[in-house]
Amino acid sequence: KNAKKIYDQASEMVNSSEFTTKSLIEKFKVEALCTTDDPIDSLAHHQSIKSSGFKTKVLPTFRPDKAMNVDDDNDFLTYVNQVEKASNITISDFDSYLAALKNRHDFFAENGGKLSDHGLNHITATDYTDQKIRGIFANLLNRESVTNHQKDQFRSAMLVHLAHMDHAKGWVQQFHLGALRNNNSRLLGTLGPDTGFDSTGDFMQAETLSKFLNKLDSTDQLAKTILYNLNPGDNATFATMIGNFQDGTVAGKMQFGSGWWFLDQKHGMEEQINCLSNNGLLSQFVGMLTDSRSFMSFPRHEYFRRILCNLIGNDVENGELPDDIEWLGEIVSNICYGNAKKYFNF
Amino acid sequence: KNAKKIYDQASEMVNSSEFTTKSLIEKFKVEALCTTDDPIDSLAHHQSIKSSGFKTKVLPTFRPDKAMNVDDDNDFLTYVNQVEKASNITISDFDSYLAALKNRHDFFAENGGKLSDHGLNHITATDYTDQKIRGIFANLLNRESVTNHQKDQFRSAMLVHLAHMDHAKGWVQQFHLGALRNNNSRLLGTLGPDTGFDSTGDFMQAETLSKFLNKLDSTDQLAKTILYNLNPGDNATFATMIGNFQDGTVAGKMQFGSGWWFLDQKHGMEEQINCLSNNGLLSQFVGMLTDSRSFMSFPRHEYFRRILCNLIGNDVENGELPDDIEWLGEIVSNICYGNAKKYFNF
Amino acid sequence: KNAKKIYDQASEMVNSSEFTTKSLIEKFKVEALCTTDDPIDSLAHHQSIKSSGFKTKVLPTFRPDKAMNVDDDNDFLTYVNQVEKASNITISDFDSYLAALKNRHDFFAENGGKLSDHGLNHITATDYTDQKIRGIFANLLNRESVTNHQKDQFRSAMLVHLAHMDHAKGWVQQFHLGALRNNNSRLLGTLGPDTGFDSTGDFMQAETLSKFLNKLDSTDQLAKTILYNLNPGDNATFATMIGNFQDGTVAGKMQFGSGWWFLDQKHGMEEQINCLSNNGLLSQFVGMLTDSRSFMSFPRHEYFRRILCNLIGNDVENGELPDDIEWLGEIVSNICYGNAKKYFNF
Repeated sequence: KNAKKIYDQASEMVNSSEFTTKSLIEKFKVEALCTTDDPIDSLAHHQSIKSSGFKTKVLPTFRPDKAMNVDDDNDFLTYVNQVEKASNITISDFDSYLAALKNRHDFFAENGGKLSDHGLNHITATDYTDQKIRGIFANLLNRESVTNHQKDQFRSAMLVHLAHMDHAKGWVQQFHLGALRNNNSRLLGTLGPDTGFDSTGDFMQAETLSKFLNKLDSTDQLAKTILYNLNPGDNATFATMIGNFQDGTVAGKMQFGSGWWFLDQKHGMEEQINCLSNNGLLSQFVGMLTDSRSFMSFPRHEYFRRILCNLIGNDVENGELPDDIEWLGEIVSNICYGNAKKYFNF
Repeated sequence: KNAKKIYDQASEMVNSSEFTTKSLIEKFKVEALCTTDDPIDSLAHHQSIKSSGFKTKVLPTFRPDKAMNVDDDNDFLTYVNQVEKASNITISDFDSYLAALKNRHDFFAENGGKLSDHGLNHITATDYTDQKIRGIFANLLNRESVTNHQKDQFRSAMLVHLAHMDHAKGWVQQFHLGALRNNNSRLLGTLGPDTGFDSTGDFMQAETLSKFLNKLDSTDQLAKTILYNLNPGDNATFATMIGNFQDGTVAGKMQFGSGWWFLDQKHGMEEQINCLSNNGLLSQFVGMLTDSRSFMSFPRHEYFRRILCNLIGNDVENGELPDDIEWLGEIVSNICYGNAKKYFNF
Repeated sequence: KNAKKIYDQASEMVNSSEFTTKSLIEKFKVEALCTTDDPIDSLAHHQSIKSSGFKTKVLPTFRPDKAMNVDDDNDFLTYVNQVEKASNITISDFDSYLAALKNRHDFFAENGGKLSDHGLNHITATDYTDQKIRGIFANLLNRESVTNHQKDQFRSAMLVHLAHMDHAKGWVQQFHLGALRNNNSRLLGTLGPDTGFDSTGDFMQAETLSKFLNKLDSTDQLAKTILYNLNPGDNATFATMIGNFQDGTVAGKMQFGSGWWFLDQKHGMEEQINCLSNNGLLSQFVGMLTDSRSFMSFPRHEYFRRILCNLIGNDVENGELPDDIEWLGEIVSNICYGNAKKYFNF
């Protein structure tokens, strides 16, 4: 009944100078936030924020979805041209394409980048040879026909090459898997992508994910990795998959990512936390992420922390965890802050 | 220990004149019930009930499973003949087949029909052209060979044409997806279909469901739709899928159907309600359905309502919903009665 | 903080004569335990334990995974040679291969075997003819090329033939489905199989499982069967699948196996028990199994029993089950002991 009053009051507050974007971030005591950026991004805003003396680190995240998206030949060639311009490297073949992307990867690192991110239905892990990939890329450049199998080979190769770059720099690579996007072509045409017409998919995830991670691990080039799933039915698969590739080099090297998108509500978060705790080491969890593009998303960390404490508190009340506030408090503190700081090298 | 006594007493009551089918339905204060009927059904019983002055509306539901089932060529041709007789329209090609089905669809509407229903493993959404479908139907009529791919094309086309009929009349179309039927061929042979040898399947649902709904939406011919899933692992997929096609024309146009069949027990209902509430707008939910062929199934609505109230009450007790009986009461009342009445135009 | 003290004390106890393997098993009052053994195993240890007068029955379980594993031709031929030696039957064709395996099956039965076990990603149920299988086996023996489809046919036939042996002897056949094994080839190379690099898979289970069970049932050769799934998202599929093949010959003939491997923790066990109870007859459940190779695994039965009692007790407290300790107690007692003793003929 007082919705209108609350709305008006909140609007007034948000419009006041006390609630500018920067002051919000300061109020939330954000130490570091990572945006999601295309490799061709100039990062001019990141540089400007940094030089302004803003205390919160605002770091770019390398999100090369378009660099391996060959669904549409023309869109891909347009993108290749943009990479060429951004990198100032002439792209005449697959090797120069990789060099240009590596140039952008280096540029992101110079600007504080420490993470990459991929948004995919599922991992593609089709067998390929370097020679074949060179031929496929040449065909793409020359607008010659490329089969669906060849496109899968290309995607598979790109994932591996980009993962090698992440590993070489000690970055964290993230995979957001399981969304089915752009379901409504009519409203997509009216409103554009990322406007609400995406949903949860039901892809088979395990075998290609395992094959991909194993390929990276087999040459000791598997970077720190966070796997996020969108279908809660895949929780067990993801929570157990990370166990296959923990190797003791970094505590919690492989992470089962926190409840994400449709799952970042109480049920989804609890299921992720419980599934991780049942199958892995909760104490090494790097905790919640929010969509940092949304300046009001940071209280979601508070929401996550309360949910985590509530779960642990209930277990203590049920006698399923020892009533040891010091020990449990340190675990909570690490999940909410310490683990991430250490893991991402912030 | 008193099972025998209760059984005897219940048997006696059910056999008394106070518990006839009609008096049961009156006692339950059923305003409208919908049966499930084949397009070839004469609806003679519906007409007879109506003319008897029975207060409860007893309405037919158009269930054209056989109209698109080309698993067995002979069964299909037998069915085409039955449609021909029921419609009094000679079926010589695909267009006259559609006309005959449209005739039955009209007939159902004249007899109060407001819903269709489909029972499918999963939606089939294979690309086709009208011309190809005409050729496939001609082959079916002429007992010429039809490939599995062509059968998928035929099923895909039938789903679209029937959906267009539903949309044109403002009906609600329902899809019951995910069952794996007739698993035990030995006992099926002895006892016949629908005698207990069906189970939950694990089909991939999302992509074809999205493609089908999108095709209907793209020409603005997507009727009000209820999607029911039988595998609880698909809850998230279904609950988020409806969001892709809500278009503001009808409140709650796209519905994630209530826990059904194996899932219409407390756990299954709670999971459906929570998943809907996490991903959509619980307040627009049209609520429980029961198998109206079973005259004793109506108390299941009472069961559903108690489960719903219990969930909401627990949230209030936990401080997760405001303790506002008026506001929550209206939501409950709408889910249990008002939304369905409005949605189905009963 | 007292971890070291506990560890030291426990180590000391375990090393004392009071805690030998045999005394542990006696302390746990284990009546019978079943190991998991390859058909080529000599069962010398089983015989030696038996002749030693040890009170607990230590019985072999027939686990013929390698007998149908044709992933690697050389490994398979090596195995065929081992079967030949163990059975003392010359294997020159498919029929003599089956005879040799049947010989081992008989040998296991003579040594008290009452169960078989299979560890598979998923059931393979590809159509085949006996003649084709004979040809495929001949090709395998002669190191001639065999297609992937033929390998699937071979696996399918082996599953059926072995299932017939189980049925003929009144054994219980077990299928552990859904694991994705050997994901980390680097550490697998260092540490060997079964050292921690397995995880939950997300295979489609329902259709082939149904087809396989139906094939056995159609000739009335379906043995008592326990189906274990590793992906909790498959619970509903498995819990309803068993209902298709209950035939009244044996109470609880088809069993949905207890939470296994990654799922044998409180959440996993509760979900399995609830799913079974929602879709089948909890009272006929044969209850927990543990990994009897691990001598300290028996307290897991205690863990399971407490979880079961806790679930039932909560239902009583909520008024969802009658407060009838005698009736509920008998059900609990049967699930924890009586049902298994009867079902397995221990």
